[in-house]
Amino acid sequence: MSKSAKEIISKLRVIMAEDGLDAYIIPSSDNHQSEYVGEFFKARAYVSGFTGDAGTVVITKNDAGLWTDGRFFLQATYQLKDSGIKLFKMGNPGVPTILEYLKAEMPNNGKLGFDGRLIAMQEGEELVQQLANKNITVEHNYDLVDKVWKNRPKLANEPVFLLEEKYSGESTASKLQRVRDVMKKAGANYHVITTLDDIAWLLNIRGNDVMYSPLILCYAVVSMEKVYLFIEESRLDDKVKEALAKDNVVLRPYNNIYEYVKGFKAEDAVLIDPDRTNYALYKDIPACTRKIKMENPTVLFKAVKNSMELSNIEKAHVKDGVAVTKFMHWLKTNVGKIKITEISASEKLEEFRKMQDNYLWQSFEPICAFKEHAAMMHYTSTPETDVELTKGSFLLTDTGGNYFEGSTDITRTFALGEVNETLKHHFTAVARSMINLARAKFLYGCKGYNLDVLAREPLWNIETDYKCGTGHGVGYLLNIHEAPTGFRWQIVPSKHETHQLEEGMVITDEPGIYIDGSYGIRIENELIVRKGTQNEFGQFMYFDTVTYAPIDLDAINPEDLSRDEKLYLNNYHKLVYKRVSPYLTDEEREWLKLYTKEV
Amino acid sequence: MSKSAKEIISKLRVIMAEDGLDAYIIPSSDNHQSEYVGEFFKARAYVSGFTGDAGTVVITKNDAGLWTDGRFFLQATYQLKDSGIKLFKMGNPGVPTILEYLKAEMPNNGKLGFDGRLIAMQEGEELVQQLANKNITVEHNYDLVDKVWKNRPKLANEPVFLLEEKYSGESTASKLQRVRDVMKKAGANYHVITTLDDIAWLLNIRGNDVMYSPLILCYAVVSMEKVYLFIEESRLDDKVKEALAKDNVVLRPYNNIYEYVKGFKAEDAVLIDPDRTNYALYKDIPACTRKIKMENPTVLFKAVKNSMELSNIEKAHVKDGVAVTKFMHWLKTNVGKIKITEISASEKLEEFRKMQDNYLWQSFEPICAFKEHAAMMHYTSTPETDVELTKGSFLLTDTGGNYFEGSTDITRTFALGEVNETLKHHFTAVARSMINLARAKFLYGCKGYNLDVLAREPLWNIETDYKCGTGHGVGYLLNIHEAPTGFRWQIVPSKHETHQLEEGMVITDEPGIYIDGSYGIRIENELIVRKGTQNEFGQFMYFDTVTYAPIDLDAINPEDLSRDEKLYLNNYHKLVYKRVSPYLTDEEREWLKLYTKEV
Repeated sequence: MSKSAKEIISKLRVIMAEDGLDAYIIPSSDNHQSEYVGEFFKARAYVSGFTGDAGTVVITKNDAGLWTDGRFFLQATYQLKDSGIKLFKMGNPGVPTILEYLKAEMPNNGKLGFDGRLIAMQEGEELVQQLANKNITVEHNYDLVDKVWKNRPKLANEPVFLLEEKYSGESTASKLQRVRDVMKKAGANYHVITTLDDIAWLLNIRGNDVMYSPLILCYAVVSMEKVYLFIEESRLDDKVKEALAKDNVVLRPYNNIYEYVKGFKAEDAVLIDPDRTNYALYKDIPACTRKIKMENPTVLFKAVKNSMELSNIEKAHVKDGVAVTKFMHWLKTNVGKIKITEISASEKLEEFRKMQDNYLWQSFEPICAFKEHAAMMHYTSTPETDVELTKGSFLLTDTGGNYFEGSTDITRTFALGEVNETLKHHFTAVARSMINLARAKFLYGCKGYNLDVLAREPLWNIETDYKCGTGHGVGYLLNIHEAPTGFRWQIVPSKHETHQLEEGMVITDEPGIYIDGSYGIRIENELIVRKGTQNEFGQFMYFDTVTYAPIDLDAINPEDLSRDEKLYLNNYHKLVYKRVSPYLTDEEREWLKLYTKEV
Repeated sequence: MSKSAKEIISKLRVIMAEDGLDAYIIPSSDNHQSEYVGEFFKARAYVSGFTGDAGTVVITKNDAGLWTDGRFFLQATYQLKDSGIKLFKMGNPGVPTILEYLKAEMPNNGKLGFDGRLIAMQEGEELVQQLANKNITVEHNYDLVDKVWKNRPKLANEPVFLLEEKYSGESTASKLQRVRDVMKKAGANYHVITTLDDIAWLLNIRGNDVMYSPLILCYAVVSMEKVYLFIEESRLDDKVKEALAKDNVVLRPYNNIYEYVKGFKAEDAVLIDPDRTNYALYKDIPACTRKIKMENPTVLFKAVKNSMELSNIEKAHVKDGVAVTKFMHWLKTNVGKIKITEISASEKLEEFRKMQDNYLWQSFEPICAFKEHAAMMHYTSTPETDVELTKGSFLLTDTGGNYFEGSTDITRTFALGEVNETLKHHFTAVARSMINLARAKFLYGCKGYNLDVLAREPLWNIETDYKCGTGHGVGYLLNIHEAPTGFRWQIVPSKHETHQLEEGMVITDEPGIYIDGSYGIRIENELIVRKGTQNEFGQFMYFDTVTYAPIDLDAINPEDLSRDEKLYLNNYHKLVYKRVSPYLTDEEREWLKLYTKEV
């Protein structure tokens, strides 16, 4: 892949030279600021060979770099080998940001290019402003990669379906009412929404345009009476059309939004989210139109799950827990007896999910990583890297399912055969870490950066760490990583995770230890934020765990656990047995009894 | 006091009416944005009767309010009784800020007055900007209280002394060099400093103009060659004058700074700290002069203690620990036998401090609070409130000493006689809370809001809390509350506590439980931030505890402690014994052995 990167980049440099560009940015996003994108939008992966979910390539006349975060350092190092692209490890001391790099590397009076649809308006504006000091101009209507990308995949075009109210728990009419209430209060008569999960949530529609995420490529503009939905009409069947028409949803072709927003008038006021609207679209809104810049109201609305969603999510997790428990039983009893590889194990796990009612497909690219592969946090097994599982180390599976009752995200690390004391010590530390966050009680108002240390402390105490957040919000058949709340000790503005924890939010708790070249351990449960006691000290909050699958006792050192941690683990395993055992075979049930026993 | 408040406020309202003022703000600060102020500046206490260290009064035509924070809710409730002044509990849900209150209560085209020297420029600018919407004008050169304050105390005028380099660890020349390096880098040729601790630190001078804090009322302007120090010359003896002259420090009368800054030119660039320069002074700098707004470089410089300071601080704490341990022994062996009151106990504790070498005076107003008095976090015993200590409850002492080797701040809560199980349970929870923060290991880059929860969690778990930060930076013979780092889960911009923890910072760790009408428990140690292991996961940091006095085992429930907490407590007590016992009488030493025994 790396040789191809060199070729592609030299082709790009030829065009850059012709067009007078000194630098070109290739982000990993789509027109909708999505984290995961359809094949059409994988320009950064096409150019660089780096297939991780997050990363931006910058090409200059003589240099090329990839910026990515801690989750992908190992993978990027591997995939960029011989590509001529330097790896910039974001967040590491001394590593410049893209902006700092451009400021240092670009010449005065230079020219920077990017496809303005792939960059959020906030980011685009900052680039333009900061580079103005060096009198650098920016060409933002410019898809350079398209000019060299032969056989580029088509834009996704999958069928759209309705999410019934028994799953969504709230009608589109009611959701629109809530959005319009915010618009009124903010003084806006239009609201442009381009993020796919916000639109899907608002209109109770789903699709399959982005691998794994059941989303639909479209834009929307909400007025006080109507919703303009920019999508090819051919993609909707009559049932969907009828349902949308009832809520005054008017259809327009996908790309027409750019022309549409040019029609806003001086007396209009448009609510737009500076982090969730692309720069090109923003620049197409007339300068005279008032822009009311705030977070899409749907961001917080959809993150706070309603009671119907929560009870559905509970059901989805029981099914998912059954699948994972069956898989664990199969794995533990067969490893060393039959040939199992990373890929075949992953397929087996999906088989168990497919047996469940209302299962759609996996909720994200499954990770099934053996031994040192698991040290790469987001490793994907390919036929070239696949290995047979053997006893004496860990298999890490980070997988999830999309059910009509919601999406799941669960990581379990399994000891295959006997593992040594160091592995057990680290596994137990990760379990303590997960448990310490899950059992937190806290005052209303706490944010992720307040609580993250509860998970870190057991690992920091033994001088280890994981180079990523501890957890993320989980969408309901939307994005698996959902803003605006997560667990991370450092505030990373682009992650949009600093909203306080609200009752009804669903967030993952997934600490880990990753030893380069040796092994990786991660344990992940999902937590529902609940309201607890209110007294003279304030409103207390706590978490309910909604993930049900054993934490491998074969790798737990009970002596490492405090009394409270033991109590928590035993109660958790009791709950797992209670929820999951009714759906198992007799043999599996007997086995589960052993794997949920008290320590 | 409350009746007097009513009288004073009606007098103020008469002048307000004559001058056409709709509202007047009386902050608790001085001209230097100090937290603790000299008698001359206690206008807010004079007007309202509320003597707490933090609080702002706002008077309108028909209304008057006091805004203060959680530490002072109980005290303010008590002291404002019958004053006609409403208490606004800052930070509580639904309580408006002063700005929100003024926006709501002031009429359009109204007039607001305040003494611009008592408000930071940032705050003043925000007031002016935000009230401009209602076309409200602001009169900021206006000391209303002075017009009614008969027998107002004089401005403090105590002798100035030098802090020798064996105490400060760095020469003034070296400190000035570091400041000028920052000025150069920022493109400034002048730096206006008005905060008393910044000036005292920079010039290695101390005084006694603010009760307890060894500071000097003065202003300074640093140029590339000189320092203009605005202070009455009569206050300096020849030795001090000579030392200052060596560093090119030029003297000017105290109030001349306002005229002086009017002389800045268009080509000048002045480094000023928007949070640490008063609004009136800022408004006197010509509009054409460039203002480079950033934190005073001295803020971070002085917070990071040098190795000489740290070794001195260690010595100061041993002396202080000896005093507190002797006091504890005296208290425990005499309570119920001789008459002891809050005030006499407080005096006794100071007696023990006065026996120590190089002791100057107390480092802040001592708190010596029995039983329900201790529920008021910042209670000060007066002859009217003083009570005799009896067995069966807690005495809380939060006190400290200024030594040439540094300032101390220590809280101990003592069980007098037998205390019941609830009290022990709460006391142990507070000890766990203090211990859990003290034993933290963390990655470099952590801020107070990341770690605060370690102290909160043991208390949140039993659904209690303390309505204040967990700890604050401690100045070296400067301010007892020192920016820019502290422990607090909520970010309160005005507290300036969000700088990451740097090696060599000294911060308190002082969680508590306060049960209104019953009792208060607080345990406070000071922590030094240290650098630990550096490995592939990053730079680890940890704390060294520098406070040496027993944590009262009579109130500890060993069963409530985890294994790690027990280990920590036992090791801590071993250290206390080692540091303190050499300076005790035989009887005290035997007693200390018992009170530092393993649990």
